[in-house]
Amino acid sequence: MKVIVVYDRTNDVLRGKIIERLNDYGLERIQYSTFHGELPHHALRSLEADIRQLLNDGDETDSVFFYPFCASCFKGRREVGAKKEMKEYATNVSIF
Amino acid sequence: MKVIVVYDRTNDVLRGKIIERLNDYGLERIQYSTFHGELPHHALRSLEADIRQLLNDGDETDSVFFYPFCASCFKGRREVGAKKEMKEYATNVSIF
Repeated sequence: MKVIVVYDRTNDVLRGKIIERLNDYGLERIQYSTFHGELPHHALRSLEADIRQLLNDGDETDSVFFYPFCASCFKGRREVGAKKEMKEYATNVSIF
Repeated sequence: MKVIVVYDRTNDVLRGKIIERLNDYGLERIQYSTFHGELPHHALRSLEADIRQLLNDGDETDSVFFYPFCASCFKGRREVGAKKEMKEYATNVSIF
């Protein structure tokens, strides 16, 4: 299924671990704190468990939001403004 | 329809204008750079046009992502980690 993942500001170490984990699962970074991509249902559950463990080890005020999408909804996403390469954030990102 | 809106880091003035506009449309700030809520289709189009205008007046590298959701998808959203009040960001936010 399609999913977008957004996380709030965290300390640098925890944020780095979250980013690493999201990359491990093949999600693409489309903004500073937003990833999206496609994951099988079981992989999404596994990712959520991994993130939960990371957050349990970190600041209790941190949280990460998961928005699973049906294919129809995902097609309806839109970007307003400049499309940009996210080389600052990841090396293999294609935006839509 | 349900929608989430995520925006990347921008300069403070532009970010403030974007936040103000999203608040004007009744969307709720759930993270530093993420809003969600419900808008009629025509209001969503109007909001996109407003944001596009703001971005046209600002830095050309800025962008804002809109993810319209069907009700079924929206019900599937999940937060991992601590639920928190977003008093730092808005005064009338209820998270889920």
